[in-house]
Amino acid sequence: MLNEKIIELGKNSSEIRELSEYGDKRKAEIGAEKVFDFSIGSPNVPCPDRVTQDYIDLIEKGDATAIHGYTPAPGSMETRKAVSSYINERYGIDCRPEDFYMTAGAAASLAITLKAVCGRGSQVIVLAPYFPEYKVFIENAEAETIEVSLDQESFQPDFEAMSEALNEKTAAVIVNSPNNPTGALLSEESLRKLSSMLMEAQNKFGTEIFLISDEPYRELVYDGAKLPLPLDYYNNTIVCYSYSKSLSLPGDRIGYIMVSPKADRRKDVFTAICGGGRSLGYICAPGLAQQVVAMNQGVTSDIEKYAENRDLIYDIIKKCGFETVYPAGAFYLFVKSPSGDGREFSERAKNHELLLVPSDSFGMKGYVRISYCVSREQIEKSAPAFRALAAEYGLVNN
Amino acid sequence: MLNEKIIELGKNSSEIRELSEYGDKRKAEIGAEKVFDFSIGSPNVPCPDRVTQDYIDLIEKGDATAIHGYTPAPGSMETRKAVSSYINERYGIDCRPEDFYMTAGAAASLAITLKAVCGRGSQVIVLAPYFPEYKVFIENAEAETIEVSLDQESFQPDFEAMSEALNEKTAAVIVNSPNNPTGALLSEESLRKLSSMLMEAQNKFGTEIFLISDEPYRELVYDGAKLPLPLDYYNNTIVCYSYSKSLSLPGDRIGYIMVSPKADRRKDVFTAICGGGRSLGYICAPGLAQQVVAMNQGVTSDIEKYAENRDLIYDIIKKCGFETVYPAGAFYLFVKSPSGDGREFSERAKNHELLLVPSDSFGMKGYVRISYCVSREQIEKSAPAFRALAAEYGLVNN
Repeated sequence: MLNEKIIELGKNSSEIRELSEYGDKRKAEIGAEKVFDFSIGSPNVPCPDRVTQDYIDLIEKGDATAIHGYTPAPGSMETRKAVSSYINERYGIDCRPEDFYMTAGAAASLAITLKAVCGRGSQVIVLAPYFPEYKVFIENAEAETIEVSLDQESFQPDFEAMSEALNEKTAAVIVNSPNNPTGALLSEESLRKLSSMLMEAQNKFGTEIFLISDEPYRELVYDGAKLPLPLDYYNNTIVCYSYSKSLSLPGDRIGYIMVSPKADRRKDVFTAICGGGRSLGYICAPGLAQQVVAMNQGVTSDIEKYAENRDLIYDIIKKCGFETVYPAGAFYLFVKSPSGDGREFSERAKNHELLLVPSDSFGMKGYVRISYCVSREQIEKSAPAFRALAAEYGLVNN
Repeated sequence: MLNEKIIELGKNSSEIRELSEYGDKRKAEIGAEKVFDFSIGSPNVPCPDRVTQDYIDLIEKGDATAIHGYTPAPGSMETRKAVSSYINERYGIDCRPEDFYMTAGAAASLAITLKAVCGRGSQVIVLAPYFPEYKVFIENAEAETIEVSLDQESFQPDFEAMSEALNEKTAAVIVNSPNNPTGALLSEESLRKLSSMLMEAQNKFGTEIFLISDEPYRELVYDGAKLPLPLDYYNNTIVCYSYSKSLSLPGDRIGYIMVSPKADRRKDVFTAICGGGRSLGYICAPGLAQQVVAMNQGVTSDIEKYAENRDLIYDIIKKCGFETVYPAGAFYLFVKSPSGDGREFSERAKNHELLLVPSDSFGMKGYVRISYCVSREQIEKSAPAFRALAAEYGLVNN
C-alpha cells in the first residue's frame, strides 16, 4: 500500500514552490517582465568565471573514469583536505579532513544529520520562523518538531520558551544564521546564552544535545558584519553547509557536514553521519562538483550585488510604510502584513503581480518573505506595484 | 543522543567497501599491478566521448545561472520528455514525461521508492542473493526485509518460498535483472509466474503490491540476448534506473524512477515518490547531469568490453575447476566456494592477492562475487593466482 502520509507530502509541495509555479504560469500569460517574482531563494548572480573554467579543465583534461567515478561515501580525501585546511585557516580552529562529510547540498546535510542524531520519539527544537523542510527531515528521522519562537523585534530566541522546551527527549536544536526567512543574524549574546542553556540541559538530563547549525548563507553577510559562529560557543555542534548560495551552484548539489572538533564523541558522531547518509541512499556527493569546490575554497560569487539589492528593496518597502527589519545577511526581507495576516497580504499582492511568500509555512504567521536575489531591474520596476499595494492598506496615497 | 543503530550502519560500511579499502592499502604496499582487485562494481570503461563534449559545450556556452540552477524536484521537463520519448520508442509503451522522477542514481531511486510504498510494519520481499543496501533503505522506510532465495542452479525465484512469504503486510517485491551479484537474467517464465502470483495476492489481501525493478544493469546484456522487462508483465511496476553503469557516470549521481503507465494508481504513486524524495532531502537530481543524459538517450559506453572480459574470466575460472554459471549480463561472476564457505574462500584468495567479495552480505552463503569491470590485463595476469588458489583446494595441480 502507498504511504498516505508520504502522498500528502508529495501533494503539498511547499507554498514557495506553489507560488513560484503560479508565477511561471502568470509570466507565460502576461509576459515575464510584468510579473515581480520574489518567491524563490535561487541565486541570480552567476558562479565565478574561475569555477566555469575549472569545470571545463577537469572535464577536458581529466581521465574520464576518474573524474566521473565514485568517491568514498564521505567524499574524496583531496576535497576533504582542501575544505578542512581552509576552515582551519579562516576560523583559527583545529579540524581534520576526517570531520567532513561531503553531501549533495544543505537539504542532504540536514536530512543526514537528523537521521544520525535522532531516534524514534526524540524531539528537535526549531526556532520559528524556520525553513519548512526541517519538519519533513525531522519526521523522516522519526522525531518530533518542537517550535520555539524568535522574538519578533530582534529575531533572537525567546529563551524562556527555549528553557521550557528542553527535556530528556531533546536530541537537537537547529539554528540558521543568517536566517531564512528573516535575514537576521544570531548575536554573540544569544549564542552564549543558548550554549549555556544547552550545556545545563545536557548535565541535568544526562543526554547529548546537538546544535545543528544550518549555514547555507554563511558567506552572505553584508557591511563587513562579523558573523558569530555556533561552533565557537558550543562543543556538540554539527555544521550543515552548502555551496548553492555562496558559489551560485544550487543545481550542482554540493555541500558538507562538519562535526565540531570539540564534540564530545567526535568520532561516533561522524560514524553516525556516515550511517545516516547510507540509510538515505546517498552513495557519495556528486564527484565533479567535489573536485571543483576543492579548487575554490574561499571563493564566492559577487555577493556585493545582493547587498545592493537589499538596500534598494528595503528603501522601497520602508517608503511604502510597511514594517520590516533591515537584514544583515542572506537575501531575504521579512515584511509584516498590515492586516496581520500573511496569506491575505500575499494574495492581495498577487493582484499587483507581486509574488511574496506568506510566512505561515515558516511556522510564524503575519509576514511575507521577499527574496531579493533577482535582477536590479525587477526591484526598480516593482516600486509602483508595492506603492499601489500599500495604498490599498491606507499606508500611502497612490 | 546519537542513534546507535545508525552508528552501527556507519561502522559496518559494506563488506565490499572493506575489501576494496584493504585492496588500496595492499596496492600501496606491494604495487597496484600485483593486486588483483575484483571487489568493486565500478565501470572501468570511460563514458562516451560525446558525453564529455556535451558537458563541455553546456558549461562553455550555457548561461551559468541556468545550467547550475535548481530544476523542479522531479527533474527538468526537457529531460523528462527526452527520457520518456526514448523509452516509448524503444519499448513500444505509452508513458508520459509525468511518469518520470529524475534522481541522484539507483540508490536514491530505491530509497525514495521504498519510502513511497512502505509504511511502518510493512514488508518487502527481496530475492537472495541481493544488493546489501536494499535492507538499509527498507529499514529507513520503517519496513521489514523478507528474504526469498533464488534457485542456486538457475538463479530464478523459488516460487514456493515466494508464495509463503506473501501476506497482507507485503508492500513490495524487489527484482534486479541483470542481477548483482550473479549476472543472471530473470526469465520470461519467471516474470509471468511472479506477476500472476502478485496479482493473486493483491486480490486475496485487498492490497497493492509493487514490483520494484532495480535496473542499473539494463543495458549490460550480452550476445544479443533479449532482456524480459518486469514492466511488460505486471502493472504495479516501478522502475529504478541509473546511468552509472550504462554511461559510466557513477560519480555524477544521475538516474530516474519511472512509474508504469499501467499502474493502478499511477498519479498517486508518482505523488508518493515526490513525497519520498522530499522526505530524504533530495531537492533535485544534479542539474548538469540531467541535461547531459537528456542529450544521450540510447547512448552507452563500450559495453562490448565487458562481454570480452566475461569470456576471459569465465574461461580462467572454469579451467581452474571452480563452479560458476556463465552470466548473461551485468559485470559480475558468481563463483561457488569449494569449501562451501564464501568468507573462507575470500580470505584464502587474499593470500594470492585476489580480492573476491564473499556472498554472505548478499544474503546467500557459500559464494564469492568477481567484478570483471577491470582491465583485460588484470584478468590475464590473475590467471596464475586463480590456479594456485584452485590447487590449494585440490581442484588442479599447480
